[in-house]
Amino acid sequence: MNAVGLVAFATVGSLKAIDADFDVLGVAVLGVLTALGGGATRDVLVGSVPAMLQSTTDVGFALAGVVVAVVVARRVGTEVLAHPVVDVPDAVGLAAFAASGALVGVGADVSPFGVVVLGTTTGVGGGLVSDVLLQRVPFVLTEDLYATCAIAGSTVLWVATASGLGATIAAAAGAGVTLAVRLLAIRFEWALPTVRLNAPA
Amino acid sequence: MNAVGLVAFATVGSLKAIDADFDVLGVAVLGVLTALGGGATRDVLVGSVPAMLQSTTDVGFALAGVVVAVVVARRVGTEVLAHPVVDVPDAVGLAAFAASGALVGVGADVSPFGVVVLGTTTGVGGGLVSDVLLQRVPFVLTEDLYATCAIAGSTVLWVATASGLGATIAAAAGAGVTLAVRLLAIRFEWALPTVRLNAPA
Amino acid sequence: MNAVGLVAFATVGSLKAIDADFDVLGVAVLGVLTALGGGATRDVLVGSVPAMLQSTTDVGFALAGVVVAVVVARRVGTEVLAHPVVDVPDAVGLAAFAASGALVGVGADVSPFGVVVLGTTTGVGGGLVSDVLLQRVPFVLTEDLYATCAIAGSTVLWVATASGLGATIAAAAGAGVTLAVRLLAIRFEWALPTVRLNAPA
Repeated sequence: MNAVGLVAFATVGSLKAIDADFDVLGVAVLGVLTALGGGATRDVLVGSVPAMLQSTTDVGFALAGVVVAVVVARRVGTEVLAHPVVDVPDAVGLAAFAASGALVGVGADVSPFGVVVLGTTTGVGGGLVSDVLLQRVPFVLTEDLYATCAIAGSTVLWVATASGLGATIAAAAGAGVTLAVRLLAIRFEWALPTVRLNAPA
Repeated sequence: MNAVGLVAFATVGSLKAIDADFDVLGVAVLGVLTALGGGATRDVLVGSVPAMLQSTTDVGFALAGVVVAVVVARRVGTEVLAHPVVDVPDAVGLAAFAASGALVGVGADVSPFGVVVLGTTTGVGGGLVSDVLLQRVPFVLTEDLYATCAIAGSTVLWVATASGLGATIAAAAGAGVTLAVRLLAIRFEWALPTVRLNAPA
Repeated sequence: MNAVGLVAFATVGSLKAIDADFDVLGVAVLGVLTALGGGATRDVLVGSVPAMLQSTTDVGFALAGVVVAVVVARRVGTEVLAHPVVDVPDAVGLAAFAASGALVGVGADVSPFGVVVLGTTTGVGGGLVSDVLLQRVPFVLTEDLYATCAIAGSTVLWVATASGLGATIAAAAGAGVTLAVRLLAIRFEWALPTVRLNAPA
């Protein structure tokens, strides 16, 4: 699941950069950052040296996603960003990353809020930073149900570990909830409401 | 003072997000980030796990500010952002946060410049990150006297501790100076000059 | 070289802020951040308290660059940003910062990818953050050959140390490559290609 997520996130980030006419370096940086940025932020928050600076496997998956994006963009175009073939692996990545981040939080002995923050940051942090670099309002804060799925999954994971379940089962439950909520949100176009304003009388 | 600041900062951040038509999650994230982001950045800079991941009291105050923002926005509208009823608690928060950040700097044995950077970052970091996410040029860098007040207060706090005064007195002096300068700046519409350009001859 | 880079980076950052009509505080913050932001990010990534919070020499050079920018802007105007008199010391800074960052990476025992990330981040991180605060798409991701030079130099530095060469020689080789590639890129207007899109059939 983690590998699927790394490739999917990198593909999405690189496609956005291609769409914005970045040069090939910018495309590679945006792809790698989208895939690895959330985990790196999580590691910095808990005081670790980011795993991406030490392992090379994850970097390989991220670079594979960059290559996929370039091939896809040249063959099909960047309209593919709105296609389910991107949405599903992206949802798998969100689920895997949120669960891994929340697990790190449980291990780092932070508060329940901290567990949810770390899970959600791991899931959406890379996309958020990429959108900032692309000069967009981060889609995770405005578009349909996305970060909310990571919050739901991280919460379930925390409840599961607090109930004494083992890390593997808790992670599976958390990732399952994130994935299910996300896929349902895409299928039924769920979205959170905005705060409607009443004009002053 | 810290509690007042957390609620005020979260209210301001959430009101901005409501004004920008973010969904309820985005509104909550912006509020919490405005309140807790400066302190989290400070903690990361000195190598600590951010307090917000460990304590729950601060998170509670931040969420209270989010609720205040939603209620206010629906009753009165977001124009309230320009009203003194927001400015004064916001100034209290700036003073409290800058003093707490500068104190952390004194404790972490950084340079005088480091003390001022940590105090100012704690005071304005949350608002700055929020403005970046809202796709605005951060108001703390362009609008009237804001970050300058935190710089002044942090400097006073450092001078006070370097003069041998105790932490409590130094913090009170630093916070008092930040608050006083900020309130005077609002009252008299003080602003820093820009660098006027001479066109080349 | 480091001192030249600090002054040059701060001058460039402050000139951009003057161009964007920031007040004098914003001008100083942008200058200091451009000069010290890359190194601070590198330090946070490897788990150190940023050197800029502890040393005062670097801060002095950065502030000198801010003063240079103000004097230059009032005498000549900000058009000087496009002039070679800025490009050359900026290239020296890029070379010095990338080499210092890559050396930190070698010392921190990260992967080869990590060495390149740390070198490049140190070289371009300050400019990238400044552009985000100025609400621009970071120039390092879109404009000609810039971050690529830091990547080339960091790679050379890693190869040199992995081949058993001492730190001084490796740093000189890395910085030399970054500087040479950057100056050639400016002279011959080298740029990376974008990913050309084929419209779907």
